[in-house]
Amino acid sequence: MMKSIVDKVLAGDIRTVARLIRDIDDGVPEVRQYLKELYLHTGRAYVIGITGAPGVGKSTLVDQMISHLRAQKKTVGVLAVDPTSPFSGGAILGDRVRMQRHSTDQGVFIHSLATRGYFGGLTQSTQSAIDVLDAAGKNFILIETVGVGQDEVDVARTAHSTVIVVAPGMGDEIQAIKAGILEVGDILVINKADRPGADKTLSDLRLMIEMGSKKYEQGKWKPPILKTEALFNKGVADVLKQIENHAAYLKKLTGPIPLRRRKEKVEQELAEMVKNRLIQEGFEQLAQTGAFDEAVQSIIDGKMDPYTACDTVILPRLGLLNRKV
Amino acid sequence: MMKSIVDKVLAGDIRTVARLIRDIDDGVPEVRQYLKELYLHTGRAYVIGITGAPGVGKSTLVDQMISHLRAQKKTVGVLAVDPTSPFSGGAILGDRVRMQRHSTDQGVFIHSLATRGYFGGLTQSTQSAIDVLDAAGKNFILIETVGVGQDEVDVARTAHSTVIVVAPGMGDEIQAIKAGILEVGDILVINKADRPGADKTLSDLRLMIEMGSKKYEQGKWKPPILKTEALFNKGVADVLKQIENHAAYLKKLTGPIPLRRRKEKVEQELAEMVKNRLIQEGFEQLAQTGAFDEAVQSIIDGKMDPYTACDTVILPRLGLLNRKV
Repeated sequence: MMKSIVDKVLAGDIRTVARLIRDIDDGVPEVRQYLKELYLHTGRAYVIGITGAPGVGKSTLVDQMISHLRAQKKTVGVLAVDPTSPFSGGAILGDRVRMQRHSTDQGVFIHSLATRGYFGGLTQSTQSAIDVLDAAGKNFILIETVGVGQDEVDVARTAHSTVIVVAPGMGDEIQAIKAGILEVGDILVINKADRPGADKTLSDLRLMIEMGSKKYEQGKWKPPILKTEALFNKGVADVLKQIENHAAYLKKLTGPIPLRRRKEKVEQELAEMVKNRLIQEGFEQLAQTGAFDEAVQSIIDGKMDPYTACDTVILPRLGLLNRKV
Repeated sequence: MMKSIVDKVLAGDIRTVARLIRDIDDGVPEVRQYLKELYLHTGRAYVIGITGAPGVGKSTLVDQMISHLRAQKKTVGVLAVDPTSPFSGGAILGDRVRMQRHSTDQGVFIHSLATRGYFGGLTQSTQSAIDVLDAAGKNFILIETVGVGQDEVDVARTAHSTVIVVAPGMGDEIQAIKAGILEVGDILVINKADRPGADKTLSDLRLMIEMGSKKYEQGKWKPPILKTEALFNKGVADVLKQIENHAAYLKKLTGPIPLRRRKEKVEQELAEMVKNRLIQEGFEQLAQTGAFDEAVQSIIDGKMDPYTACDTVILPRLGLLNRKV
């Protein structure tokens, strides 16, 4: 039975892939076993993150990128982690209707990751969903996120190439992503470039890139800045071209090791996994001791501060900390 | 020496408060000891969260709220967790200049929380900074966040009253916060209400509130929707009036227990703390074993998937999991 699920994913069975991703999103514990088996079949897909503030046109760009990739006979998986994305059921009706054109194409798989477990793990869920799509044989996986919160930046980091999308005349929004832009953006796109202020946005972005110039020495990747009008399919091919260039750059860095197994990616992914397991196991153990409720009551009664409660009531009950405290 | 730092905070010494909050933000371990001692002096401040997408005018609203509260002789602490906020050094020059008027007022303390530790903890840092301002005697603490990511929603949850700010004609932005709005918003504000589309925004919000009407039975708090023009100080007094009403509502629920020690708040805060401690202790132990690097290498070499590496190489080295695996 278990074999059959893994086999179905490897064969690219859409329904099984969809169910598995939904189970990942819901945090069903049994999926771990499938993910273990699927992992060894991953490493072939190229993962592209598309991130930016609401309203800049990320979904339209994704939609056009799908068409371009399909024209090249590539298969595509899309994960929308963006509550405003038409892919995830947000945004306005027109956008949603536009997306429909890909819904009957067997080479395209679109899914939204909606929820987030009580103990975080959006990055983990996204990575697991990527693994499933990768094992299912998708050539490209596009991940759409809102690039404002730290969570979204972390999700963007799971991609091989991250595209940051901005629109002219949204000064504040540019500020909003400024902190993370130089760190996670591999390609910068000014969408809706026919709007007033596009050149101002271009020079602003260029300045930001230059200000961070220490990081872009000889031979290092320097994020190109592109103008697009995704709605009219203008400039979209250039975006894909730059992604190709970036992929070639990464491949040169990594050598024969598949991108999926680059040291920093593996470290980041494993750290995320260990973190989630620590929390999960810790709280499971805790639930059996009643220590948490005990500590809460002491704090409510004003007998203890939460720092002390954590150190003296909770942590000693967890085997983890037997070495000290 | 340690006593003196705690005493200085309790006496409201601005420089000590600023240094302690900066140390919290930087994750300096020694601050835990101070926080323990300060905690028992907390519970008097009223914490207000102000959240919304970039460009809706949160900072202007905060700025005006400060003036109103100061006119009532209340002391105010402001924490900006928003990269676009003029309080945190973002946004455009005009905004920043406007803020300056409070910078010489000893009754106002403004600080931005910029960074986030490697293992998360923005919510934790914010709560700790609130505790310091609370112990330092601030009557009101305003927390400004960008209301898009899950992190920001979590931070907003640390407040007693959360104000969601939107602006007309930003349909997408409303969508962006839609998911969290009914859950965390106690008061909804349409700022820039002189702009076209304000009535449309009002009816949209009203609809959202009504659609979630099951949650607002008799006697339960139903988020009021207010129109403001913060730049012209219009409607700001009403916002504060509604915050007062919400505070009275909470007080009725909680009875004689200080708001700070309401069960759900204590549970949430303690869970966050335990979570962070588990991660911190777990990774510290791990660093001493070399198991992490070992696991990473096995994955890079294609000998192992990360799930198996986590379960068989890493977790058994941590005392936490001796009970099984």
